[in-house]
Amino acid sequence: MGARERIWTAALIVIGDEILSGRTQDRNIAQIASWLNVQGIRLREVRVVADDSDAIGEAVNALRARNDYLFTTGGIGPTHDDITVDAIAMALGVGVEVHPAARAMLAGYYETRGGLTEARLRMARVPAGADLIENRMSGAPGIRLGNIFIMAGVPHITAGMLEALTGTLEGGAPLLSAQIGCWVAESEIADLLSEAERSHDGCQIGSYPFFREGRVGANFVVRSTSQAGLDACMADLKAALEKAGWPTIAGGI
Amino acid sequence: MGARERIWTAALIVIGDEILSGRTQDRNIAQIASWLNVQGIRLREVRVVADDSDAIGEAVNALRARNDYLFTTGGIGPTHDDITVDAIAMALGVGVEVHPAARAMLAGYYETRGGLTEARLRMARVPAGADLIENRMSGAPGIRLGNIFIMAGVPHITAGMLEALTGTLEGGAPLLSAQIGCWVAESEIADLLSEAERSHDGCQIGSYPFFREGRVGANFVVRSTSQAGLDACMADLKAALEKAGWPTIAGGI
Repeated sequence: MGARERIWTAALIVIGDEILSGRTQDRNIAQIASWLNVQGIRLREVRVVADDSDAIGEAVNALRARNDYLFTTGGIGPTHDDITVDAIAMALGVGVEVHPAARAMLAGYYETRGGLTEARLRMARVPAGADLIENRMSGAPGIRLGNIFIMAGVPHITAGMLEALTGTLEGGAPLLSAQIGCWVAESEIADLLSEAERSHDGCQIGSYPFFREGRVGANFVVRSTSQAGLDACMADLKAALEKAGWPTIAGGI
Repeated sequence: MGARERIWTAALIVIGDEILSGRTQDRNIAQIASWLNVQGIRLREVRVVADDSDAIGEAVNALRARNDYLFTTGGIGPTHDDITVDAIAMALGVGVEVHPAARAMLAGYYETRGGLTEARLRMARVPAGADLIENRMSGAPGIRLGNIFIMAGVPHITAGMLEALTGTLEGGAPLLSAQIGCWVAESEIADLLSEAERSHDGCQIGSYPFFREGRVGANFVVRSTSQAGLDACMADLKAALEKAGWPTIAGGI
């Protein structure tokens, strides 16, 4: 397999009772997935786990070995329910230390905000040997250790950390996609979809039905790392749908 | 441990390339989590996996054994990317059969919609021995096999299937929660939170910071299966916050 075909993968662990209780609607899965696509990395699997050291550790050890990158979100704040750093250090069998640069950043950030208390200093703790990920939004940095990226749970802070990482990770060809929509029940054109996918190596077609304005419809997404392959598959799919009597809407409905 | 203290758990597997690519924002985790709370069942873990038979099978076998219930969403439609039934049957080592009642439902539903084609009949296929979960929204039913509940991915159809299951699953005491908000940096009051949690057995306190209207704040959620325990913990937390000079807002900000 040539270097161009190597597929780089990532896993994500979303840490937090607030997601599992339904209190908070997760936004990081979609946000990180979209960002990874642009970096040429595929999000292959996600786990959502509780604020529980064993659950975090099990997920970390299961996923870090079988993916190029592992991201985590949540549990790196200053309160008692923020246990991500300790849980990951334990899973890796390393200690926890105060990172001098993180301490300096927090000291600067809190200089005019009441000073660096013991609770705030918790946010400078990292698994031994870790580097920091810049956080321009608030004082506490993210953490990188080997292929593990430990990030905030609050989506706009996560976004800032992703921005700091943009272009720094090795990836492959970005996964491209294009969408087309049709006011058709997907069961009407299932054969046509699977035929279009079969005829175009390296393309996947996803079919996403909906019910809107009292009518059924579906959007079809073609994904490929090759722009030419994607364009050809999309052109065939469009032609096949229209030949079958279903007008298509570019970009989806 | 008495029957009242038994904690019933569930896991959820969200199946679909559209979630992992970032195209679709998942809504089923929060929806199912909230519904489970009312049934007295805790959502303990979630995995998001691709439309890939091995990935689905691995997750099913890992999670069904260690939870009372396992839910899946996605991949039960009529198109080529809908492989959930086959993947689960393979993971369980059972065959796939057309369920007679599902076939009858689909025949009725499609009678005035173009008839029961081969693609539509795919939606009547179930792992051998399975029962159906009613779907009042569209023709295709969900599927129950032992402790596994196979449901639609489109959130309003999932909602209809949950409604059909309401009250039919054995659970424990529902997990209750209450929320309070404060315009405070959570790092200011970290000790006070952890002290309030320590003083109230069976209560967990979650701290969820935010940045809004140019100010930092946090909401604090107390969770317990005991209303009295929850009320006492919340009262202590409120008193402690106000004593420290932070006015609280009932229900959160």
